[in-house]
Amino acid sequence: MKKKVLFTGLALALGAGYALTAFSQAKPEVLVKQRQSAMTLQGKYFGPLVGMLKGAPYDANVVARNAAYLDTLSQMPWDGFAESTKGEKTRALPAVYSDPGKFKQAQDQLRTAVGALVAASAGGNEGAVKAAIGDVGKACGNCHDNFREKQ
Amino acid sequence: MKKKVLFTGLALALGAGYALTAFSQAKPEVLVKQRQSAMTLQGKYFGPLVGMLKGAPYDANVVARNAAYLDTLSQMPWDGFAESTKGEKTRALPAVYSDPGKFKQAQDQLRTAVGALVAASAGGNEGAVKAAIGDVGKACGNCHDNFREKQ
Repeated sequence: MKKKVLFTGLALALGAGYALTAFSQAKPEVLVKQRQSAMTLQGKYFGPLVGMLKGAPYDANVVARNAAYLDTLSQMPWDGFAESTKGEKTRALPAVYSDPGKFKQAQDQLRTAVGALVAASAGGNEGAVKAAIGDVGKACGNCHDNFREKQ
Repeated sequence: MKKKVLFTGLALALGAGYALTAFSQAKPEVLVKQRQSAMTLQGKYFGPLVGMLKGAPYDANVVARNAAYLDTLSQMPWDGFAESTKGEKTRALPAVYSDPGKFKQAQDQLRTAVGALVAASAGGNEGAVKAAIGDVGKACGNCHDNFREKQ
């Protein structure tokens, strides 16, 4: 009985389409869905910080929480850009696959900017935090400019 | 020039459809996309752990990393189940909205199980880690059984 409950839970937890082995073997469409999910959640938690640059009330607690979330989320999209996904219909530009060094640099720029935002949000200086939010935005924009099709 | 680059970056970072104010004001379809993204990523990082229960090689480093990721991700879906999303076409059952207390309990069960997995993965006992993985699976399954439409 216990075993049955366990396996029901696990099957449901995984849903359809997830490989039970290492996720590097996941299907291309699953990898795309996963990397787009990471981008969606980065947008969810970065959006309110941009709002604070644009006049929404500054909330240091929200900044600190979202910065920590972004520190985790900004590690998640990259392994989804596997060679196997080249044929999927997405906005990823060919440069993702033809210039992996530059793509990695753009990822590192984001990771560095998010790390600086985490540090700034711990420091408590609103001006420094806002500058750090701006730098994260530049890192997002730099990567999108070079590696994502314009809409 | 600097300002232009900044705003280009920010606009791209947010993409279409994100409110610039607090995300509690996000459109229902955005909330749904965000909560589903959190579920997708929980699947991405929980899947390999289930694989280890089912015979894939045990890798303590992967467990520790994924447990930490899940500790963050498992905080993310819940504010997406706002009343405003009741009319969206999703697999969320009416009980999400009619029995918020039980829904919250199911969320807490997951958070507790993930916390125990983080602790177990720091402890380094493979048997304890695997039991903790099973408990996370049960928490996923319990919530899906009660709050998600069967496929």
